[in-house]
Amino acid sequence: MNGSLAIVGLGPGDLRMQTPQATATLETASDLVGYATYLARVPERAGQTRHPSDNREELDRARHALRLASAGRRVAVVSSGDAGVFAMASAVFEAIEGGDPDWRGLEVAVVPGISAMFAAAARVGAPLGHDFCAISLSDNLKPWELVLHRLTVAAAAGFVLALYNVASRARPWQLAAALDALRPVLPASTPVVLATAVSRADERIAIATLADIDPTRADMRTLVLIGSPATRLIERPSSPPWVYSPRSAAL
Amino acid sequence: MNGSLAIVGLGPGDLRMQTPQATATLETASDLVGYATYLARVPERAGQTRHPSDNREELDRARHALRLASAGRRVAVVSSGDAGVFAMASAVFEAIEGGDPDWRGLEVAVVPGISAMFAAAARVGAPLGHDFCAISLSDNLKPWELVLHRLTVAAAAGFVLALYNVASRARPWQLAAALDALRPVLPASTPVVLATAVSRADERIAIATLADIDPTRADMRTLVLIGSPATRLIERPSSPPWVYSPRSAAL
Repeated sequence: MNGSLAIVGLGPGDLRMQTPQATATLETASDLVGYATYLARVPERAGQTRHPSDNREELDRARHALRLASAGRRVAVVSSGDAGVFAMASAVFEAIEGGDPDWRGLEVAVVPGISAMFAAAARVGAPLGHDFCAISLSDNLKPWELVLHRLTVAAAAGFVLALYNVASRARPWQLAAALDALRPVLPASTPVVLATAVSRADERIAIATLADIDPTRADMRTLVLIGSPATRLIERPSSPPWVYSPRSAAL
Repeated sequence: MNGSLAIVGLGPGDLRMQTPQATATLETASDLVGYATYLARVPERAGQTRHPSDNREELDRARHALRLASAGRRVAVVSSGDAGVFAMASAVFEAIEGGDPDWRGLEVAVVPGISAMFAAAARVGAPLGHDFCAISLSDNLKPWELVLHRLTVAAAAGFVLALYNVASRARPWQLAAALDALRPVLPASTPVVLATAVSRADERIAIATLADIDPTRADMRTLVLIGSPATRLIERPSSPPWVYSPRSAAL
């Protein structure tokens, strides 16, 4: 068993944000495994086998990749953003823990990438410049009450929030409900950023406040940043404002 | 005033984790500004002016960079990791907000990088695979009581913790104090990762538990990851265990 498995973060989409390590790992793989939409970002190469799958089949996809590696293949599992943040790396280790004991002898590497939240933050300024939390809004894998608890506790403690998986066809109501839960905790003027398809051709960035944000503008590709009470806007003459969180904080 | 300013995240150190966008921005700059240790990572180029400075002078350094850009220079401010995470981007926007109103007309770009926490997480598995927080332990810019409050609140809510600025010569006691504050909140078996100089020649990674971690092994270049109660170890025959946080959670 001398195969290997790498879980590769592609970054947000723009190839200029894909690391040389990620590119080299993809180029030397014998097999590419991943959600079809993400696999489509990787250039075709002669001699490479591609295994596209649907979304929401992470564990099956992870086991498939592990079986290929066990058979001696050099497998790259692709993720958008960073491979370890609400992406495929956790699914692979869950599959290893519950699967064939021989899988623990495989060579497994995680190749980090530029996460959606850092790409989104960079587009508007430095909203993540102070303590922050990353939270997935999806209630496929945890109770919605826990999502709400974490949101309100973190906001009340002064963390900036980066929200992943804010909407899908099956969960169109969650972002609005999350914002409703945050309104008693945060000032109405708190800056909110909706960043969709960051770094891609159809990128859309909206800067609003907790009072006037329109959650129906979010879709599956939207990352939402919610400021802390300290997060500030810097108005500019003929451009959208910059959003940033100061480095300092008071009790 | 047609100068520009880019705040560039170099990533953790290994050039294979520096994005092509960061490399191109550094190559086309007329002036490089930054903490001398980080500037030393950027290859020398003919015709480029370098402005190294001491650590802990972020605002002065930011104003210096803004004055250069105002004078028409093409300035790159370098940061380790991601430029927007406990790094120079916030300092630049703070300087803009409090400085020369003309600075708001400058072209300012933030170039994201692979953050220390993602590089560290990738080395051990997928500890950040579930909701997590990034917290700076430094009390230079916020009260220590606030640091402790955020740590305990976030840990109690089930967030994995990524701790930045865990130690310096002036603050050798903080990591031990932070761990003491977390012990009543988290199981003694909670996995803890000390990742020092990740991806560099002298990289050191220690995997321990909240009960047996030795905080004196951390230094200025150490990133600390503290699991949630759900974070798990996967033991392996002849290698250190993998550390990962499952994607799912219960109340």
